[in-house]
Amino acid sequence: MQDSNATPITDVAAHVDALGRQARAAARILARTDAGTRSAALQAIADGIRAAAPALTEANARDLTAGREAGLDDALLDRLALTDDRIEAMAAGLEQVAALPDPVGAVEALHPMPSGIRVGRMRVPLGVVGIIYESRPNVTADAAALCLKSGNACVLRGGSEAQHSNRAIAECIASGLQTAGLPPEAVQIVATTDRAAVGALITLHEQIDVLVPRGGKGLIERIMREATVPMIKHLDGICHCFVDGAADLDMAERVVINAKTQRYGTCNTLETLLLDAAIAPALLPRLHERFEALGVELRGCAESCRLVPALTPATDADWDTEYLAPILSVRIVPGIDEAMAHIARHGSGHTDAIVTHHHPHAERFLREVDSSSVMVNASTRFADGFEYGLGAEIGISTDRLHARGPVGLEGLTTQKYIVLGEGHIRE
Amino acid sequence: MQDSNATPITDVAAHVDALGRQARAAARILARTDAGTRSAALQAIADGIRAAAPALTEANARDLTAGREAGLDDALLDRLALTDDRIEAMAAGLEQVAALPDPVGAVEALHPMPSGIRVGRMRVPLGVVGIIYESRPNVTADAAALCLKSGNACVLRGGSEAQHSNRAIAECIASGLQTAGLPPEAVQIVATTDRAAVGALITLHEQIDVLVPRGGKGLIERIMREATVPMIKHLDGICHCFVDGAADLDMAERVVINAKTQRYGTCNTLETLLLDAAIAPALLPRLHERFEALGVELRGCAESCRLVPALTPATDADWDTEYLAPILSVRIVPGIDEAMAHIARHGSGHTDAIVTHHHPHAERFLREVDSSSVMVNASTRFADGFEYGLGAEIGISTDRLHARGPVGLEGLTTQKYIVLGEGHIRE
Repeated sequence: MQDSNATPITDVAAHVDALGRQARAAARILARTDAGTRSAALQAIADGIRAAAPALTEANARDLTAGREAGLDDALLDRLALTDDRIEAMAAGLEQVAALPDPVGAVEALHPMPSGIRVGRMRVPLGVVGIIYESRPNVTADAAALCLKSGNACVLRGGSEAQHSNRAIAECIASGLQTAGLPPEAVQIVATTDRAAVGALITLHEQIDVLVPRGGKGLIERIMREATVPMIKHLDGICHCFVDGAADLDMAERVVINAKTQRYGTCNTLETLLLDAAIAPALLPRLHERFEALGVELRGCAESCRLVPALTPATDADWDTEYLAPILSVRIVPGIDEAMAHIARHGSGHTDAIVTHHHPHAERFLREVDSSSVMVNASTRFADGFEYGLGAEIGISTDRLHARGPVGLEGLTTQKYIVLGEGHIRE
Repeated sequence: MQDSNATPITDVAAHVDALGRQARAAARILARTDAGTRSAALQAIADGIRAAAPALTEANARDLTAGREAGLDDALLDRLALTDDRIEAMAAGLEQVAALPDPVGAVEALHPMPSGIRVGRMRVPLGVVGIIYESRPNVTADAAALCLKSGNACVLRGGSEAQHSNRAIAECIASGLQTAGLPPEAVQIVATTDRAAVGALITLHEQIDVLVPRGGKGLIERIMREATVPMIKHLDGICHCFVDGAADLDMAERVVINAKTQRYGTCNTLETLLLDAAIAPALLPRLHERFEALGVELRGCAESCRLVPALTPATDADWDTEYLAPILSVRIVPGIDEAMAHIARHGSGHTDAIVTHHHPHAERFLREVDSSSVMVNASTRFADGFEYGLGAEIGISTDRLHARGPVGLEGLTTQKYIVLGEGHIRE
């Protein structure tokens, strides 16, 4: 099924259903494995990926050729490319995940109850994870590693432009699983580029326990409308930084410049800067000078444009835009209440920060701002599974249920109650 | 809006949308309240319910009269009835929830990271909870209490047969909220019995953060098909008890009789008994005698019927049936592997128990059975928020994401990351 010369799939729904059933059976076996076996599988996969580097490069070349013929732009072709460094990074990533503490089987808080029973919670895999992603083929290895480490089977649906690369990586994964004595169906890729496969996967709630869609807003919104499988998703990253009236301006400048310019295309990049009117006259001209030198366009509210006439006037749409580009909207507000009201109205619940030396404002911001990450005196760019010590990250959730913010291995598990008695009955 | 003489709602979708927006605004205020204010509101509501007992009885009499005219059966009329005892129980329930530890605001594990930032997680309300339930009017007060205690606003959609009772209870809730200085829109009921309101509520994902449907399987399955709001739900309770070959037969008898007969209509009641072939000849005749005396019909596999010819032969459908009645299916299996395979195939992931004195079998059952509650030597009837020490219960989740098993106040909250820096930037 994962052979790159496979015959075309005609019944897409039946194919996806079969993958789901095989994944469910594999998940039951995986849930019973010990940590050592799962880590050994990850090591075997890493070894296989290194050994298969020439084959991976060749498969990737087919995708790149097809991509060029299809007129993909340079940025997309770059994301698609599997260089030697990227192949080594995939293998090293598998080894890093293998070395993380095992999340499965831990029992939390086994408490005696008044009835005499003891009650606790055991951490267990979610079951079968469906992952839908776009052009980067390394996601195939990264996502499989996180799912396997946490004891889950997975069904992967990558971008059609990366199909040969993804199949070649999936072959390495299947071999590694077999080497470790685990069922190769623990990691399967959808063997068709037919878009109907996405529709089949996201409604297969009997077999798939959770979806993790990774991609642009269009993909996520389609899945939200159509899925019957619950999901852990990331929608928007409209991140704010509010510089309070009681902020250290040097610190504010350092944090704001980093949050906007350390990388432009990431979801935790700063998109809107809110300035307390008390410090705006001193801070905004400095920031404008720095940002201009860095090639960042500032789009300001009327008051900002009055202070720094060189700014582009912002339109209403700017406050709701995730630029993912060297553009920053700037608004001057009377104080923290208006800053938090702006964030509540225009934010996406991803990551928002305050820069302040005023303790009560720091405390209020932490308590009252309703986002997956809320920060004091730190760059929004820290919102990341590695920076938070999760060791790895399957994505950043802007949902509220189950997993919120960066999602690591724990987010791919759940807890069941365990009850120990000695023949206890309920009176 | 919650007046029992309100004019009919003509635009159901607009009405539900308005409730959602008001709930969202109230949720933002609630999320900022302290524990004392929310507990004071619950106490004020309890006082109001006691003071309004005559009005509640009168409103309930209107529902009962309408129910009798509509031909509701005695069981349904009993569930609908608000006796003095049940009114007092609602008030006492509010006071019990008020006295529980407050789940909101706790910060877990504020760890320093290599970068110098400190990262922790703060427990916060989910936001707006939509609750859809059937005939028992006390759910209006119980659900509101749990939502308010955990800092959530809620929109309640009760059964049309309880509409007057629900409105009268909602008036007490609104008055109590106002007494405590909280917005009355924190708890709203849908002011129409039009079934289209359910459709509007379950697709209002902009305003409703989570649905908690409470009702029969038909209601839940409809909501699963149509909802775009994520939910915490309970589907089936096909609970098993496996009596291992190494079980104490007196203990097994005690546990099995309790699990089946302590109450018949509850989701954690035993529905299928699995007996190891080694102890079946000694145990099944004893159990048959006890169950016969208790009026419970046993439906057995071929081997069970051979051992006790008086049993009704089970059909394939029996293994997948939640009887909620004095009926128990019985199957004899060669051992623990076949017992767990039966549970994996026919169980609903709710609650399953083993009776054994063999430690390795107890450990395997705990690890390998994939249900929200897994028990050793205890009656399945213990699967309950009160018995587990949660203090209260909004329902029992058979889902895997977010909340699994009995759901108390913690299940109505989520965690956000908080990051403390001193001007830290990402390198």
